[in-house]
Amino acid sequence: MVQFSQLRRFDTSFAAISDATRRGVLEQLGRADASISELAQRFDMTLTGMKKHVGVLEQAGLVTTQKVGRVRTCRLGVGGLREEAAWIERYRQMWAARFEDLDKIVEQLKQKESSDGRSTTE
Amino acid sequence: MVQFSQLRRFDTSFAAISDATRRGVLEQLGRADASISELAQRFDMTLTGMKKHVGVLEQAGLVTTQKVGRVRTCRLGVGGLREEAAWIERYRQMWAARFEDLDKIVEQLKQKESSDGRSTTE
Repeated sequence: MVQFSQLRRFDTSFAAISDATRRGVLEQLGRADASISELAQRFDMTLTGMKKHVGVLEQAGLVTTQKVGRVRTCRLGVGGLREEAAWIERYRQMWAARFEDLDKIVEQLKQKESSDGRSTTE
Repeated sequence: MVQFSQLRRFDTSFAAISDATRRGVLEQLGRADASISELAQRFDMTLTGMKKHVGVLEQAGLVTTQKVGRVRTCRLGVGGLREEAAWIERYRQMWAARFEDLDKIVEQLKQKESSDGRSTTE
């Protein structure tokens, strides 16, 4: 059985959103479709640089592009980061439980200390 | 104003979880603290390889380590991916709205087509 954490697809999608420009491009395309050159201009980047970023997003299924004439239009892809969100959510629950456990241990140690303190003074 | 998408910190954290082994390490440490060598053994990896992965997680604030004698123990760090989860959630909402818009446009085109069809046959 493949563990959830071991889905290689997540490698591509999390890597795709590990760049501020690429996250910005996704937000921009969430508002409206845009051509590569519009995106390049908006993010103050060369066409070549923007093409690379869009390529990474495309490979992760987060963006699709379509060339009509000389213009390549970018829009959001079908990948909606649903399972990635679920992984993070699961991790957050585990994380919270783990810190709650630690809090309890610290609390128990404190109580033990204060009761030990009392028995010494008796 | 720094945009949410432009938080450079996200670059480090999303990159840290863009690797199946590192996600596995986080899940493992969510169950119990572990030494580097225990982790290396569990993920069938050299000590050097595991040290690198733990280093990446540590830099992202997702793991902390403490060396006692010859053993370096790893535990979950204070970084709980809370804001990263919020970014993805915001993106998912935008994504859903965008696809809903497209659905509406397709629906309108269909209705127009069928009413055009009717007026031609009249």
